[in-house]
Formats: sequence, structure tokens, C-alpha cells
Amino acid sequence: MSAQPCHEAPISRRPGRPRLADLEHRVLQSALALIDADEEVTVSKLVSTSGVSRAAIYRRWPSLTQLIAAALDEGRVVPPAIEVDKDLRDVFFETWLGPGALEDSGGYSESRFRQRIRLVMADRQLQRTYWETHVSKRRVPIEQALQAGIDQGILREDLDVEASFDALAGVAYYQIVVRGDSLSDPAVQKRLERSFQTLWRGMLRSDT
Amino acid sequence: MSAQPCHEAPISRRPGRPRLADLEHRVLQSALALIDADEEVTVSKLVSTSGVSRAAIYRRWPSLTQLIAAALDEGRVVPPAIEVDKDLRDVFFETWLGPGALEDSGGYSESRFRQRIRLVMADRQLQRTYWETHVSKRRVPIEQALQAGIDQGILREDLDVEASFDALAGVAYYQIVVRGDSLSDPAVQKRLERSFQTLWRGMLRSDT
Repeated sequence: MSAQPCHEAPISRRPGRPRLADLEHRVLQSALALIDADEEVTVSKLVSTSGVSRAAIYRRWPSLTQLIAAALDEGRVVPPAIEVDKDLRDVFFETWLGPGALEDSGGYSESRFRQRIRLVMADRQLQRTYWETHVSKRRVPIEQALQAGIDQGILREDLDVEASFDALAGVAYYQIVVRGDSLSDPAVQKRLERSFQTLWRGMLRSDT
Repeated sequence: MSAQPCHEAPISRRPGRPRLADLEHRVLQSALALIDADEEVTVSKLVSTSGVSRAAIYRRWPSLTQLIAAALDEGRVVPPAIEVDKDLRDVFFETWLGPGALEDSGGYSESRFRQRIRLVMADRQLQRTYWETHVSKRRVPIEQALQAGIDQGILREDLDVEASFDALAGVAYYQIVVRGDSLSDPAVQKRLERSFQTLWRGMLRSDT
């Protein structure tokens, strides 16, 4: 397969020195093209496909692992803070299952998701870096909302916020990683919804 | 890396025709050695490393995909039926978190688990075959126990057995696939235990 980046966003070339964000974007898109083509990502390949110098790449990312972790996260965003003044359950359900919440929606394709899992399963150092620099940060707004739910007396005082998040997310991962299903499949949506209901009941204060 | 099976169990060679189970074992061990060495599994390699003929291999497994799925399942067993006459919660907790329940205990190493995830993420046909011929069968005793719990009035009448299983298992997968943790880590055990508590509360009949 070709190592040419096939999804490279058009970059406006300005006269003079390109801005740092442009360079960064070009390098990450080159890395993603290699990942999508199931090719090994090396600095040499990135230099030749992105046109960015080796020195500039290393100035921006101290290690190739950090660069690949950043590439894997392209197109994903940290969700905005969740307002806990509405019905917490609905807010949650929407965040978890609503449009934009699913891993295979938006800019993040299912095939890239599957490719990401393969890469992190092959390289635990990359996995830990990706976890620390990206996934754990994306969890923050939801964990804060759960904590607010506890503080407001909606959720159990003894609720383990981290373990609850793991259960909410784990059931979605199970669909893709074990069943080989797509989150957009209506039967899968139904299963996620019913898991959510069970989990949510277990998270509520018993006297509510 | 060598294509020689490094974990091949000693096989007593009897005079005369080897039994079918012996041939089967030799082929699966050869496939596992290739998988563990991160090499592509091909019938030609299996013939040369196992000494079993191509014809015999195809007689036993109609497709290479089915053969690889069977190899990935070596050392794993369908858990015995669960007795639901004791305290269902304890029985469950033991089945889910007790010795032998964890993916990385017994004959099934964590590195092989990670390798399996990589393979199925790369090949959805293999993933579906592995799901249908192995994983879904291993779920049966636990799903039957959940159904018995419903029938006995311990668990909610409207409980979705499949979705509950997915949530129970998904949280364990999340530890390995997303966090990059080991299930034997005490902090991970604690997290699994607390997720289980939350889920279990949501599964119980509300008046119990």
C-alpha cells in the first residue's frame, strides 16, 4: 500500500516559515496515513512523507511513542464539561450514547479504532503513554459529573467514580473488541442502553 | 524469530497410526507457537512444524480461520454449570473474580491474550468465528445462572441477561485493552470488585 497520506487536509502554504501548528498537523497526518496503511511508523518515513525535518519532529515530540499516541488521538476531543443542573441520568445517557459519543462516529472511524487497539496491544509502552496523555484526560469531564452527582445526593456516597466509568466504557469496548460488532448497529445500541440502565440503577442512592 | 514451537507439550509417540487427538494437539500447538512468535500462520508452516499432512489438517478444520480460532482457545475451558442454590452473589463473585476466572490465570497467559486481541482486531472474520465457536459458548453457564437468578426472584424480572454479561466482562476487558493493566494487579482487582458491586446492585430486584 502507498505511504502517501490519503486524508491529508489541505494546508495553505504561506510564504516564509510555516507555523508550528501546520508542521504538527502534517507530521500527524503522515503518521496516520502510515497507521491506516498498516505500515510501521518510523521517523525517516515521516520526514519523507511530511517534508518536515527530523530535528523539527524531535523538537515537538521527545519520542516516537508520544508522536504515535498523538496521531492516534487526532480527530478526538476532550468532551466539554457536563452540566449537572438538568436530569443527570438524561445528561449522562446522551453523553454516553448520543450523537458524537460513539467511538465510531465523528472524525474517528471504526477501522482506525480497530487499528489503534492492535497497536496498543502490540506495545504496552505506547498503550500506557496513550492512556496517560489522552484517554485519562478525556475521562475527566464525565468523572467530574459523576462526582457532582454524588455531591448532590443523586448518586451513592460510596460510589467509586473510576470503577463506574470503567464499567460504562467497558461494555462499549466489549462490543467492538470481543463481539466484533459496530456501535452503530441498532441491536448493539439496544444492548448498550440496557447495560446503562442496569449500571445506572446500581449507581443511584438507594433511597432515591 | 524461530518458527519452532517452543511450548510444545511432550507427546508420547505410539507405534502405528497417531490418534486424531494427537494430530489435533500438534497442529494447534504449532499454530500457537507461530502466533506467540508474531508470525503469520499458514498451512505450509503448520505442515512443516507439526509434521501433520495438509490433507489431515483440512479434514479436521475446513478453514484456516477456524483452525486459528481453535488455537486461540487452547487452554481455555467452558466453565462448569453454576449452582444457584447457594448465595448467588458469592457464587458469581467467585466465578468472575476467583482463581481461575481471570483471563491471565491458568493456562492462558496475558501475552497470549494480548496477541489474540491483535489478531481479531486485524481480521473481523476470525473475530466473528472465534466469537461464535468459542466465546459465546463460554458465556452459557453464567448466562444460565443469571436466568436462574431471575426465575428465583433474586434478580430483576426485566434484566437483560446478555447485556448484563457484557457489562460484567467489559469492565475486565477495559483494564487490559484500554488501561494496559494486568488483572492480577491488586489495584485492578479492587476496581473490578467495586464495578461488580455497582452492577450487582443494579441487577437485584428492587424489593430485595
